[in-house]
Amino acid sequence: MNAPSPGQQARVSSRQQSRLLALLRDEGPMSRVALGERLDLPRAKLTGELSRLVDTALVEIGGPAASRGGRRSTLVHLADDLRFVAADVGATSVNVAVTDGRCEVLASQSEECEVRLGPTPVLGRVVDLAERVLEKAPGRLMGAGIGLPGPVSFRDGMPVAPPIMPGWDRYPVRDELAGKWGCPVTVDNDVNVMALGERHAGVARSLDDLIFVKVGTGIGCGIVLGGKVYRGVAGTAGDIGHIRLDDYGPACACGEVGCLEAYFGGAALARDALTLARSGRSSMLAETLTEHGRLNAMDVGDAAVAGDFAAANLVREGGRRLGHVVASLVSFLNPGMVVIGGGVSRLGHPLLAEVRSSVYRRSLPLATGNLPIVLSELGDLAGVTGAAWSATDRAFAPMN
Amino acid sequence: MNAPSPGQQARVSSRQQSRLLALLRDEGPMSRVALGERLDLPRAKLTGELSRLVDTALVEIGGPAASRGGRRSTLVHLADDLRFVAADVGATSVNVAVTDGRCEVLASQSEECEVRLGPTPVLGRVVDLAERVLEKAPGRLMGAGIGLPGPVSFRDGMPVAPPIMPGWDRYPVRDELAGKWGCPVTVDNDVNVMALGERHAGVARSLDDLIFVKVGTGIGCGIVLGGKVYRGVAGTAGDIGHIRLDDYGPACACGEVGCLEAYFGGAALARDALTLARSGRSSMLAETLTEHGRLNAMDVGDAAVAGDFAAANLVREGGRRLGHVVASLVSFLNPGMVVIGGGVSRLGHPLLAEVRSSVYRRSLPLATGNLPIVLSELGDLAGVTGAAWSATDRAFAPMN
Repeated sequence: MNAPSPGQQARVSSRQQSRLLALLRDEGPMSRVALGERLDLPRAKLTGELSRLVDTALVEIGGPAASRGGRRSTLVHLADDLRFVAADVGATSVNVAVTDGRCEVLASQSEECEVRLGPTPVLGRVVDLAERVLEKAPGRLMGAGIGLPGPVSFRDGMPVAPPIMPGWDRYPVRDELAGKWGCPVTVDNDVNVMALGERHAGVARSLDDLIFVKVGTGIGCGIVLGGKVYRGVAGTAGDIGHIRLDDYGPACACGEVGCLEAYFGGAALARDALTLARSGRSSMLAETLTEHGRLNAMDVGDAAVAGDFAAANLVREGGRRLGHVVASLVSFLNPGMVVIGGGVSRLGHPLLAEVRSSVYRRSLPLATGNLPIVLSELGDLAGVTGAAWSATDRAFAPMN
Repeated sequence: MNAPSPGQQARVSSRQQSRLLALLRDEGPMSRVALGERLDLPRAKLTGELSRLVDTALVEIGGPAASRGGRRSTLVHLADDLRFVAADVGATSVNVAVTDGRCEVLASQSEECEVRLGPTPVLGRVVDLAERVLEKAPGRLMGAGIGLPGPVSFRDGMPVAPPIMPGWDRYPVRDELAGKWGCPVTVDNDVNVMALGERHAGVARSLDDLIFVKVGTGIGCGIVLGGKVYRGVAGTAGDIGHIRLDDYGPACACGEVGCLEAYFGGAALARDALTLARSGRSSMLAETLTEHGRLNAMDVGDAAVAGDFAAANLVREGGRRLGHVVASLVSFLNPGMVVIGGGVSRLGHPLLAEVRSSVYRRSLPLATGNLPIVLSELGDLAGVTGAAWSATDRAFAPMN
């Protein structure tokens, strides 16, 4: 690929520069005085670090600052032309965005794409879409982040034994994309990046301990502890979709039986909706099936809202099962917030009500007393926002 | 109380001194050369920090070091007379130990004591026992740690709404004991200190991510992440005993129904054993009941080992239920080890076999591939060892 702008390694040579860039990303333009106070840096030291960042064109200085009663200062901000590519690869879609240094999405494009086709065609689509969004918002590509729907070794930048991604096992995603784009790349599990997105720019802003539950085609969970994604010793932390609820439950895509995901999530809802439609237990779903030739989770949600008893029952039963699992996690981890996201979270309040009811009834009062259980705020953008965040974190890290 | 030795605040004035003390605690006597290498400190700096620690009598220098081929060095070690009091308060017992600076137990004493009697009599027993063990191993009391069987605000040094500790809610345990002993005191949940004990001196030595499951009268869990106890936002993390398994299950001591603890743990086993004995379904337990006038978890274990089918079934069923919960936690957190401790863990391998079977069958292969599920190594000493560790951590922290 000929990227519209060649990628590069940000030259960040000290921990202070790294803190400075992160602060400008998180809080926007600031006066030198405010920067010095926030970073607790003496004036001379700040001036030195800033001038190095100006020399490497990572920050710019200009524009009058809000006066603090004394002489005028000037606002320091991240260079306007910094660009980050953020990709959210799902089971059946890819979404690629370009952001500025503050992780604001400047342009994005998504399309249907089956992850099971394997790394070559899927990463090919990611690279093509990246080229297109970079054309819409050109600048200097400084880093990229990508979320994948399976277990990922963050350190090695590759998926590890991902159940729904044949051909991807230990494929060097990071190194291949870094080679193509000429900039640092981070690779993470899709749910981890969604959790990061909500933590930095969504409903969980400023919270250090939260769990993000994604209900999409499958079910997974991102754990943020102390402000950082917790990945576990093998990188599989948060994989709650395959918690077994019943030794004699329905078959799961992973090859086991009775997994949470086999009861609830997009694939299970579509399967159950088809059964309801064909058996005549839901005339509404039967009509939709005739009309569209297929059924998905959203059709179940629509039928439930329109008063179809069987469809409403599917949402209730699924929400109840999900709620039982979340209740255990809440007792176990005592998080500060539970965020429900992913495509199926569009079922909205009926789903939320079931989960809340299970958690509030089953978890310790002390753990639920101040516990918000809320829907994702960023929705479809949670993944790319978090991936961009991960990319900036990597790009703004000191080089040594 | 007139302590045999007046307590004191260790005068640790820098982070380097703190690291030095922790290293001598964790690894024992060391030469100056080895210390300098491990702490990455220049010779002059190390000499300065060491001489300050010698001045305040926290470390001593003496004895020939293992020669490294050059001139002879001298071994640096923690002062021999440093003493820490460690108390493990359970539902029905207190265990108090005195340790040296390396958290080695020098003397300990335990007695039966009902925590529900309230803080005044129970802390009175702790203070008395501390006096006795300090008489057996006198020295300078530098700090104390105490574990309590309920939720604790570590920051405030007090229990918060503990279900089985009437009269203890927000009782200023830390401040009262610190006043009595004249040294810094840490207060934590009993399971958290047991987890710390195993992590620093037991089966989980050097592991950063583990869960410690205590099966005593009740069931709880200590979570160590990145080498530190994870407490959650309200300090209740790890409270898995009250995860509800069934909305229509047996009544629990906490006032709810169907909690894990209502099915398994010391209290539930004693209850079920009584039912088996009285109904004639276990002649062995009936005999023990006639003989001792009461039954406990160990009687169930003994009967199971001796071939009593009904008793063996209780252990199996309980282990299976515990295993289901642990399997969920393993999928969720992907820890590096699961340690089973507490009094009921003396049921030993039959219990372990059930838990292992549940976890290995129900959790992700990636999460269980290298996951040891083992019994506590420290047994009854896990609590006091962890409490001593917590006390040294506090005492060795820089003062500002």
